[in-house]
Amino acid sequence: MRPKIYLFGDSITEMSFEHGGWGASLVNHFNRTVDVVLRGYSGYNTRWGLKVLDKVFAGSSESESVLAVTVFFGANDASVEDRCSAFQHVPIEEYKQNLHSIVSFLKGRWPTTEVILISPPPIDEPTRLLCPFTENKSGLPERTNEAAGNYAKACLAVAAECGVSAIDLWTRMQQIPGWQTACLSDGLHLTQTGNKIVFEEVVEALKKKGFSLETLPVDLPVIFDIDPNDPLKSFQGI
Amino acid sequence: MRPKIYLFGDSITEMSFEHGGWGASLVNHFNRTVDVVLRGYSGYNTRWGLKVLDKVFAGSSESESVLAVTVFFGANDASVEDRCSAFQHVPIEEYKQNLHSIVSFLKGRWPTTEVILISPPPIDEPTRLLCPFTENKSGLPERTNEAAGNYAKACLAVAAECGVSAIDLWTRMQQIPGWQTACLSDGLHLTQTGNKIVFEEVVEALKKKGFSLETLPVDLPVIFDIDPNDPLKSFQGI
Repeated sequence: MRPKIYLFGDSITEMSFEHGGWGASLVNHFNRTVDVVLRGYSGYNTRWGLKVLDKVFAGSSESESVLAVTVFFGANDASVEDRCSAFQHVPIEEYKQNLHSIVSFLKGRWPTTEVILISPPPIDEPTRLLCPFTENKSGLPERTNEAAGNYAKACLAVAAECGVSAIDLWTRMQQIPGWQTACLSDGLHLTQTGNKIVFEEVVEALKKKGFSLETLPVDLPVIFDIDPNDPLKSFQGI
Repeated sequence: MRPKIYLFGDSITEMSFEHGGWGASLVNHFNRTVDVVLRGYSGYNTRWGLKVLDKVFAGSSESESVLAVTVFFGANDASVEDRCSAFQHVPIEEYKQNLHSIVSFLKGRWPTTEVILISPPPIDEPTRLLCPFTENKSGLPERTNEAAGNYAKACLAVAAECGVSAIDLWTRMQQIPGWQTACLSDGLHLTQTGNKIVFEEVVEALKKKGFSLETLPVDLPVIFDIDPNDPLKSFQGI
């Protein structure tokens, strides 16, 4: 029975199976070793995520083998509180508390599971003005890169306090020349390049904890190990 | 708890989460309604598939809600019996019996689950000569389009005998002009266009049975239904 990796988060998780998406890339990478389970909820912040936590993992049990859970919130929490996406805003202190509660829930159910907190990505403000989710007549973007950076720092702080892994996507993506359009499709969501970065960072975070294609058991004999002269030998005792 | 769709098959299933892959597209399409579980085993034929059936579904139970299982074998069974992939060949009568046994197993465990048999794709023989899995000095392709067509017909016959859905990929793909390179990347495996066809056919097969985004329950409130003036109202009683 393969262990699972749950992907829990907002639209950047929900959309992670579009072409070149980081979720699909994880399934492809771990295709004979792990089951990847999508639990992405567009538009959600940590306040709403916390409200639905029991329901999100209702089908799972303590006996389930859960290798890891990615927790990827903050892009909505960091919406500016008096602009057009204010209804998604969560104050930064509450954001931290909510992340703490989510980690506690996951660690309570699966004590040995790797929890990986992923920070919000950077924001390209001029592009956000062209792509609002709700009507925006203010001339001001509903998200700012500075706010996203503050929530990213808060996310890393929670990870350190809880002793779990973290991916600082906000900093990592801004290392890419022209990250505004190279990594982001609408100033917020990810291009294929942006998705590739998340995929590689998750693989790396798992590797640091000892989980990789080199260490994970493979589900059933692989074709390269099957003897062409006696294929059924590989299936004895299965 | 979301119902599951299992994807059971050979490399064309295992590789279905590469860029634009049909498996990834299914996850993306059903991203708030269904869990798609990958069970692809490169190189496998129905004989080996049958040997590992118990193990493949070992983590599942009768109480699990399984919407559908795609069973996608035949490309390896149809390898020509005296050429360089002979070790993967399964005689056509045994192929039919094996498919019958797989359907019986699935229907025995989950009587109401939709089983969708997918036929092998067509074969582009000239390209196969350039891309053998094993050394090929014979000058003859290890798979032929005629053999794939015979196994496709056998697959459809089994589906009719069992009263389950079937996708005739062999015929469907050959309706595409230049299918040899439009649908196939190496004369056997699928391009993004080929993957799109499989994705669309699976979605259509499910729709015919009444399962679509219009009918499947959505996991948790969607952002468009959340009242910006009172977001938490949507989460009461969750």
